[in-house]
Amino acid sequence: MTESRAVVLLSGGLDSATTLAIARNEGYLCYALSVFYGQRHDAELDAADKIASALGAHEHRVVGADLGSLGGSALTDPEIAVPEQRTEGIPVTYVPARNTVLLALALAWSEVVHASHIFVGVNAVDYSGYPDCRPAFIDAFEQLAAVATRAGVEGMPLRIHAPLIDMTKGQIIKTGTQLGVDYAQTVSCYQADSHGRACGRCESCALRRNGFSDAGLPDPTRYQ
Amino acid sequence: MTESRAVVLLSGGLDSATTLAIARNEGYLCYALSVFYGQRHDAELDAADKIASALGAHEHRVVGADLGSLGGSALTDPEIAVPEQRTEGIPVTYVPARNTVLLALALAWSEVVHASHIFVGVNAVDYSGYPDCRPAFIDAFEQLAAVATRAGVEGMPLRIHAPLIDMTKGQIIKTGTQLGVDYAQTVSCYQADSHGRACGRCESCALRRNGFSDAGLPDPTRYQ
Repeated sequence: MTESRAVVLLSGGLDSATTLAIARNEGYLCYALSVFYGQRHDAELDAADKIASALGAHEHRVVGADLGSLGGSALTDPEIAVPEQRTEGIPVTYVPARNTVLLALALAWSEVVHASHIFVGVNAVDYSGYPDCRPAFIDAFEQLAAVATRAGVEGMPLRIHAPLIDMTKGQIIKTGTQLGVDYAQTVSCYQADSHGRACGRCESCALRRNGFSDAGLPDPTRYQ
Repeated sequence: MTESRAVVLLSGGLDSATTLAIARNEGYLCYALSVFYGQRHDAELDAADKIASALGAHEHRVVGADLGSLGGSALTDPEIAVPEQRTEGIPVTYVPARNTVLLALALAWSEVVHASHIFVGVNAVDYSGYPDCRPAFIDAFEQLAAVATRAGVEGMPLRIHAPLIDMTKGQIIKTGTQLGVDYAQTVSCYQADSHGRACGRCESCALRRNGFSDAGLPDPTRYQ
């Protein structure tokens, strides 16, 4: 039996590392895809490379997509400050259409390598109000993929897996720890320094710290 | 009354130039978006800039998206020859998930500039078997946009307009000519030279030439 192929979106953060570990544990041959879209926290990409290797990805690619130049988010626009506490509604760290662009690139690579599965580490629990982290978004993208691609037209629809979507950060960390993820390698901070060390103050840092606390596990994060 | 804003995907080819002319004629304030995805025919992008200006786009942006590095198409991979005649099924000039990626980037910009409309020049008549040029694909993307974005979540869905989808190449050329498109500025050839001059032999050149013939108009294309 040939291994099923999966493209796994790998940002270098905690969630996507766990997602790759889950996909590997389920037996997929994994094509890890990182997208540089102008994010401030590009230390994530160095982390992604180490994680892909540590978790046994078959291949790791980094591709560029110039979302940053379109603006509109604290994560890509130096003029917009990264907030240090949770705000109401959709926060300024939301990158317009980011997950749509990331999944579109994953879809492109899945066509090239003949993968019928895409894994993405979106999460609707700690999702901070991002519209493109909800189950309705994942379902809609799966519907799109069925009509967008050569494989879809030829009757081999693509499945989008979002294994973390209903998990708390604590559950994600417990799962990944059982599967051998070294979270010291991952970078979650919205404003990590060039060595991948976290600020310890932004919303992403707070969520991550609470996650380790909830999981009852020591926090291996490297702080500035 | 404020003008409605629209992001218009503008490749620099005949179809997208006509689409921009239609959007302007319908009264939209147009944000023209060109995507450099590693296509061989990058003379199109120079053409796009001239066309955006000639047709009165409010702004023109070029963004990169590294589809070419993912391979899988004669349009981005120098190892795959551009065919000179129509083949059965989906041809090798199909770029995996191209229109999904282009629309995803248009969606991102539409969020940033608060546009509720996206125009794309896809065409299902002369569509050469590309899956992502069909009405089902456009409908699925519109469904996706409704759940993917801040505006969608806040009850202001985005509309995807594909005004050329049912038109023949001849009808497209007649329409654009009436709206003042200067087709000498547009580049359709899959392997245009660096001056934007067409090969005259590829499938795209053949479709274009037949279009002018069907429209009963002189072909202003600059050939090599």
